[in-house]
Amino acid sequence: MAEDIGVSLLGLGVVGSGIAEQLIAKEHTYQQQVGSKLVLNHVLVKDKDKNREIEIPQQLFVDSFDEIINDDKTSIVIEVIGGEEPAKSFIVAALNNKKHVVTANKELIAKHGPELISLAKKNNVRLLFEASVAGGTPIIAPVLRDFSANNITSIKAILNGTTNYILSRMSTENADYFEVLKDAQKLGYAESDPTNDVEGIDAAYKLAILSSLSYKSFVKDSDVYCEGITSISAKDFQIAKELGYEIKLIAFSELKDNQISARVHPTLISKNEMLANVHGVLNSVQIETDLIGNVLFHGAGAGSFPTASAVLADVIDISRNISSGFVYLDHMNIDLNSSIGDISNLSTKYYIRVSANDEPGVLSRISTILADHQISIASFIQKSSHEGIAELVIMTHEALERSVQEALNQIKNLSAVKAIENSIRVMN
Amino acid sequence: MAEDIGVSLLGLGVVGSGIAEQLIAKEHTYQQQVGSKLVLNHVLVKDKDKNREIEIPQQLFVDSFDEIINDDKTSIVIEVIGGEEPAKSFIVAALNNKKHVVTANKELIAKHGPELISLAKKNNVRLLFEASVAGGTPIIAPVLRDFSANNITSIKAILNGTTNYILSRMSTENADYFEVLKDAQKLGYAESDPTNDVEGIDAAYKLAILSSLSYKSFVKDSDVYCEGITSISAKDFQIAKELGYEIKLIAFSELKDNQISARVHPTLISKNEMLANVHGVLNSVQIETDLIGNVLFHGAGAGSFPTASAVLADVIDISRNISSGFVYLDHMNIDLNSSIGDISNLSTKYYIRVSANDEPGVLSRISTILADHQISIASFIQKSSHEGIAELVIMTHEALERSVQEALNQIKNLSAVKAIENSIRVMN
Repeated sequence: MAEDIGVSLLGLGVVGSGIAEQLIAKEHTYQQQVGSKLVLNHVLVKDKDKNREIEIPQQLFVDSFDEIINDDKTSIVIEVIGGEEPAKSFIVAALNNKKHVVTANKELIAKHGPELISLAKKNNVRLLFEASVAGGTPIIAPVLRDFSANNITSIKAILNGTTNYILSRMSTENADYFEVLKDAQKLGYAESDPTNDVEGIDAAYKLAILSSLSYKSFVKDSDVYCEGITSISAKDFQIAKELGYEIKLIAFSELKDNQISARVHPTLISKNEMLANVHGVLNSVQIETDLIGNVLFHGAGAGSFPTASAVLADVIDISRNISSGFVYLDHMNIDLNSSIGDISNLSTKYYIRVSANDEPGVLSRISTILADHQISIASFIQKSSHEGIAELVIMTHEALERSVQEALNQIKNLSAVKAIENSIRVMN
Repeated sequence: MAEDIGVSLLGLGVVGSGIAEQLIAKEHTYQQQVGSKLVLNHVLVKDKDKNREIEIPQQLFVDSFDEIINDDKTSIVIEVIGGEEPAKSFIVAALNNKKHVVTANKELIAKHGPELISLAKKNNVRLLFEASVAGGTPIIAPVLRDFSANNITSIKAILNGTTNYILSRMSTENADYFEVLKDAQKLGYAESDPTNDVEGIDAAYKLAILSSLSYKSFVKDSDVYCEGITSISAKDFQIAKELGYEIKLIAFSELKDNQISARVHPTLISKNEMLANVHGVLNSVQIETDLIGNVLFHGAGAGSFPTASAVLADVIDISRNISSGFVYLDHMNIDLNSSIGDISNLSTKYYIRVSANDEPGVLSRISTILADHQISIASFIQKSSHEGIAELVIMTHEALERSVQEALNQIKNLSAVKAIENSIRVMN
């Protein structure tokens, strides 16, 4: 029997607890999967003496990272603290000390992925982060292994469970955003400060990671155009549905003519698309390649055990290497330098909802502005007029983002127009 | 730069041509993916001099397997001939000659998987077969790697594109089976002898492979209960839809109380399920695990390039090993001996369509038989009566398969009953 493989855990929150629990409960199964025993060596926590529900031998707790970094018996460090620091310093130190690292930290990988991947390679150890995108749903390993014969051309995904939960409930209950958000917070589906989720930042991290690996060119989080869901109203859902659409926070990127574009924003998406039928906290990732067409991966995107599943798959993969006596470095090539497209050059369809005085000539003035900007109208609906204010919904054909924004600015300033109530991009 | 890696191809049909084309067209890309150049050494064909559309240098063609087996420069043999023989003999010889093997051959792996996997291990080479299940959609590698920390509890899948195409068209066009089959044959979606597809045999092969790897216990093709789609009619679709169902050829297996059950049969499946919304020739596999819940993989299940994508992913995986100087044997453990459940012990809901004389007492006699067999009725619909013949549709609660079959036999023999038009199992 091969030597035991020591694993140390940084962080014992929701995900960390799930990992520790499984490592202990499935010790025998994992030994069979790997060929060596996986042993939980240390758990780094802030307070060693805190009362915890999970049954972990007291002597495993440490409150100083030094005890892990200096522990020769720890071969694999699992980082589930989250955020940039101290996570980054810990990971850098671990890699430099020839320890393999598994992390679920999307922010860190989105911002510093290539640097950390290089550092791992330099130290002849592995850095894996399957859990950082779509939680328990496998996507990074498939991109690296299963699509290796393909050119990946686009990614279209629902990558944030919180916003998908909120949008699903708004859709089925015809409820308004703040109402559902409050309830989601009560139920634990949204954090007390929901900014990261509802503004699309979390989805942008994940899209950046997946795009970097897919297009083999570094896409930073700041390269992803990002718009949240806070302006979507029950009325938008009503109208979208009448037109055959759902509204989803879609993370989309593509590689076209050597240029990458990446964006996260609310999107009207046809009910015929699988992504339109993804409900609740689940995630879905649709990868388009030259050989296969579209492949969809769908499942749990967060949660203690689903995320632990992805982390532990990475741990088992590395452990199989260690057990077989050879560390097999990953082919994560992010060395191309494709340019990043600007959102203003995007060509897309638009849903535009305007409230205006119900008087002659308004539509004519709006259509003139659109025409002046080369925006052609696919359909136009005048919704019921109320107290002299009419609601107009315009669906455009594909138009240049820059032109649409300019046109919206001009429309907003028309004296008869009360407000641009919303403008949402449309995907087929 | 590392040495070239020689690849030889057995078979140059639809899939083989796709593989050869990609190996030639993407030589440079694959070299970057691997770190060594992949070189197509030989292509085994029946007739070397046949005129072919694909541009392959004439000297690569061989008509004797000996030329490949004795070629020291061939490290990887790709088998895309299909069927049991001569494919099996070729693969055995290749493995014994220390050549890695990649195959798309579902029949062979379903029938002889464990034997061939052992032989590969014994020879310290790899045998991979990602393309054998769900074509271009990754599923075997995810099961082996990404779910390695999980206990897989069930598999629910659409694994045959031909039947899903036929059923999708029957559903949308309200057409009958033979009508659509003929059209599918014309369009190349069904073979001139469609038996393997329409009788569920192809799906059973794939379910056997996936179940064996998931439950780590050999599930042979003959262990899979199998029923085809030929008896489904337009009328069944009409009624199913009224009741909120689609009809799909579902491949299902589960591990419960150390017993595996596996079956392929037409199924009424609720429209709310993702699998009910899989249309056309696509495949979908839903894996249920203890940690993640359900994960769905959805995409192309056949075709030249999608299948080539899966084969080449295996080839690239092995080549990365060769290039790094260490062959990393796969953890395909199929050494448990779980028992296989018999279909007669299945507990399931049933849709039963009966035509009977429109006379008093028929329903009473049918209900009595069902009650005598402990089968309780969930709903009962009497469809319109025509020329004195009424059509009765019974939806049962969960009942024992054995009892249902006995009851159906008795109902069939009632003097007032014209025929059991169809009986189809129902999933939620």
